[in-house]
Amino acid sequence: MRGVVMYGPGDVRVEDVAEPRILEPTDAVIRLSATCICGSDLWPYRGIEKIDEPRPMGHEYAGIVEEVGTEVRDLRPGQFVVGSFFASDNTCEICQAGYHTSCIHRQGVAGAQSQYMRVPLADGTLVATPDVPADDLIPSFLAASDVLGTGWFAAVAAEAGPGKTVAVVGDGAVGLLGVFAAKQLGAERIIAMSRHEPRQKLALDYGATDIVTERGDDGVARIMDLTNGLGAHSVIEAVGTQQSMMQAIHSTRPGGHVGYVGVAHEVMLPGMELFFSHVHLHGGPAPVRRFLPELLRLIEDRRADPGKVFDLSLPIDQAAEGYMAMDERRAIKVLLRP
Amino acid sequence: MRGVVMYGPGDVRVEDVAEPRILEPTDAVIRLSATCICGSDLWPYRGIEKIDEPRPMGHEYAGIVEEVGTEVRDLRPGQFVVGSFFASDNTCEICQAGYHTSCIHRQGVAGAQSQYMRVPLADGTLVATPDVPADDLIPSFLAASDVLGTGWFAAVAAEAGPGKTVAVVGDGAVGLLGVFAAKQLGAERIIAMSRHEPRQKLALDYGATDIVTERGDDGVARIMDLTNGLGAHSVIEAVGTQQSMMQAIHSTRPGGHVGYVGVAHEVMLPGMELFFSHVHLHGGPAPVRRFLPELLRLIEDRRADPGKVFDLSLPIDQAAEGYMAMDERRAIKVLLRP
Repeated sequence: MRGVVMYGPGDVRVEDVAEPRILEPTDAVIRLSATCICGSDLWPYRGIEKIDEPRPMGHEYAGIVEEVGTEVRDLRPGQFVVGSFFASDNTCEICQAGYHTSCIHRQGVAGAQSQYMRVPLADGTLVATPDVPADDLIPSFLAASDVLGTGWFAAVAAEAGPGKTVAVVGDGAVGLLGVFAAKQLGAERIIAMSRHEPRQKLALDYGATDIVTERGDDGVARIMDLTNGLGAHSVIEAVGTQQSMMQAIHSTRPGGHVGYVGVAHEVMLPGMELFFSHVHLHGGPAPVRRFLPELLRLIEDRRADPGKVFDLSLPIDQAAEGYMAMDERRAIKVLLRP
Repeated sequence: MRGVVMYGPGDVRVEDVAEPRILEPTDAVIRLSATCICGSDLWPYRGIEKIDEPRPMGHEYAGIVEEVGTEVRDLRPGQFVVGSFFASDNTCEICQAGYHTSCIHRQGVAGAQSQYMRVPLADGTLVATPDVPADDLIPSFLAASDVLGTGWFAAVAAEAGPGKTVAVVGDGAVGLLGVFAAKQLGAERIIAMSRHEPRQKLALDYGATDIVTERGDDGVARIMDLTNGLGAHSVIEAVGTQQSMMQAIHSTRPGGHVGYVGVAHEVMLPGMELFFSHVHLHGGPAPVRRFLPELLRLIEDRRADPGKVFDLSLPIDQAAEGYMAMDERRAIKVLLRP
């Protein structure tokens, strides 16, 4: 089968790779209906995260169950399923508390940018839809696998809700779907921080009420202007740099909530500033599995269209072009057709 | 009148200082019934925080209203009152949300280690008891002014409550009263981290169910042993060093809550560790005013005895001995009689 492999910074190849098979009795193998490139795939692509050996890429997936292990109870071949970037048992105390991405049996998944993939702990990880969905819904289901689930967690962590002003730092797919999540959760005002016209437009589509184009301290000053000098109640951080984290913290009013989901590379938070900011800080790898049942229903009912974040769709053999388009910010997010 | 002034590291003097008077129409002047030395007073005493000019010390107070400004509506001379270390209006949006220590009109108070003091924004800052209390309750009311209110906020920020296992990092007065607060909030299990016998004893009196004497990584390992390898649900951080903050974060299970109230001197939190810890982090200068009405009732009704943290009581003229006793950890907390 065809699969995407990264050899080093900027070096993405599509190759013939071995088809996955059931290794553990709790595994499933799925045939991907669609897969995609993640903003976090750009960290190694840009050389910020080191790669020591060729890495099969991809951790976002939606597809048809092809085969299940002997201990899989809740899934059967032919079902359409969505899962997340960490496999989880969905039964341990941590999963029951909603933190599936810290499951005591957590396993990474990899190699989703391909035609088939193995998913460990299938019963705990995958959520099936009642029927195989219409083709036009596939991009939205795929988005639920990571970017929608992550944006949703960020909005929940930021305690977006009725009466709240929410600011969103980051206009990638996660930030844009953070806007969408905040809207769904009932936020009164949603300020999207973006300087890119197509992303601003999508933010407005998803429910943003204000656009702020400034960044860093200037961006914080604009948020203050818009919130009576107090700061937003809820701030979603969806970038993961020192600047974006501090921008998020400084944009939040005392007692407010920062939900951060950008993987915090080389970030150091100064204790005294955090102390006197009086913010609540919560985030980390989004426990997408917690939200999947709810998110899949929204999509089935056509009440959510997160698939709009895919503004470029390519056959998997053109994955290298997809990486380039995302790296150069020509595309918000690239869907790959296996 | 007599007042405590710090001139530099280790140099505390009791001097004749000017009596305070009403400066703003919203001020009150109170006659102190008791005052005390704070753990945070030890930062400049130890030279960790710089002092540029002689500093009147003290920010914990309980006493009798002596005089009020022309715009003070809710207080009258003769009432017994308790306030906190920041004056607040109690009406702005931030105060209404419970974050009085970030009030938009916030003012520091100082010079409480003396016989009289001026309290700005008196209506918003001071809470009066129905009657002047019995003498034996004075230490407990004084404790409400800072250490009880701060320990209480830490327990609330850590979401201590029924069914929860709470760990407490720090065995100073704030940590010990964090144990007490966790117990009052209904925590199931409370692990106090202390290696000092008299403090362990008080922790057990206040409701601790377990004592851990190890610190740092060893302390974290013990917490893991006691919690099925998952970590505590709620961790109170009441020290404010890099080691204690990381100990608190590492002792918390994914999805759990760290409530931190130790003033975070020279602390830098590594973003990646925080990200993957999955903890909620909240804290800062405790908005004691939020909790004062509730705490004063607990004390009036003799359902709380936070005054037990004062294990040394001295006339104000012996303040220098009090600082020394706290610095050398011979005393948990020192009460000064004006």
